[in-house]
Amino acid sequence: MRAYLAGPEVFLPNAREILDRKIAMARSYGFTPVSPGDLVVPETETRRQRGLAISAINEKLMTSADLIIANLTPFRGIAADIGTAFELGFMCARGCPAFAFSNCLDNHFERVSRLYGGEVHLGEDGRHRGPDGMALENFDMADNLMLDGGIAARGGVIVTRQVAPGQLFLDLTAFEECLSFAAEQLLKQTASAQ
Amino acid sequence: MRAYLAGPEVFLPNAREILDRKIAMARSYGFTPVSPGDLVVPETETRRQRGLAISAINEKLMTSADLIIANLTPFRGIAADIGTAFELGFMCARGCPAFAFSNCLDNHFERVSRLYGGEVHLGEDGRHRGPDGMALENFDMADNLMLDGGIAARGGVIVTRQVAPGQLFLDLTAFEECLSFAAEQLLKQTASAQ
Repeated sequence: MRAYLAGPEVFLPNAREILDRKIAMARSYGFTPVSPGDLVVPETETRRQRGLAISAINEKLMTSADLIIANLTPFRGIAADIGTAFELGFMCARGCPAFAFSNCLDNHFERVSRLYGGEVHLGEDGRHRGPDGMALENFDMADNLMLDGGIAARGGVIVTRQVAPGQLFLDLTAFEECLSFAAEQLLKQTASAQ
Repeated sequence: MRAYLAGPEVFLPNAREILDRKIAMARSYGFTPVSPGDLVVPETETRRQRGLAISAINEKLMTSADLIIANLTPFRGIAADIGTAFELGFMCARGCPAFAFSNCLDNHFERVSRLYGGEVHLGEDGRHRGPDGMALENFDMADNLMLDGGIAARGGVIVTRQVAPGQLFLDLTAFEECLSFAAEQLLKQTASAQ
């Protein structure tokens, strides 16, 4: 089974090294991994054309994949990398099994509460709101309900874990746990179906 | 054509009022609008079950829709609402036309540069990086390349606009421009095909 490995690791200074580690680990669990950055981007005239070319490659890789394993560790703010969220939605719509991990134990509600400096009040409508009046989701979920819900509806899990400072996008322990769960669920099923 | 109206408006104190305005506007352009929050969520025992129920409803609404119009105005940080990004990816995978608007003229690169307090340097590999070493996408795009790329690949546009302070999630001028573009492209085509 081909596993699309989504996540903000592509932005790391040592992206290729970390992606290669993830690829090797995914192989060791029996998957055929594909990840953004695997293919060479053709030369383009403008920056925008280059962005479009990378998007087209990633969509093609996703369309060739059977499942997704997404890194939902909060990136540059309170939520997962937005490109990864797009890719998770993309694979969910294709009906693919979806799994995720996050190197952050605080859930969505806790992170948004911290963003608001704790200034969160419970409104008369039963919803928690920040000082700007915007409601906070309070569903005991790692991230926005579309992400957690999409994964759960396809039999997946989100493995969460706190890691050492500076290791937020380098520690692959939660990723490995996720791989192990996905292999147990998908590859054993395939084997027993044969 | 059924248009799924995605965006963080669902978190507003006056969410219903704004959603109803968006629905009325979409109707006036010839679309049959559906939006998150249109259906009643069944009673559930736990908060997590409630989140899952809302996710299931939204996925069902998306599956019934023919196109998406997404509000990509940055929400609680540098990027679009992550639930909206998931939904955009979902509809792109379904092969649906995708359109978006944002009440922010600054592009992704400018917003991330500001997050880094301007401490962005051009590395030897030709990529701009923040002080944490993480690369910034610099593709003249409104948001992450998967979002802009997904929309462009399906014939859509992202209408951007600067709005008055305090009107970030209330000003619907860019939304209307987006509706007008989508109607021009999709409904005239449909009409001429009949």
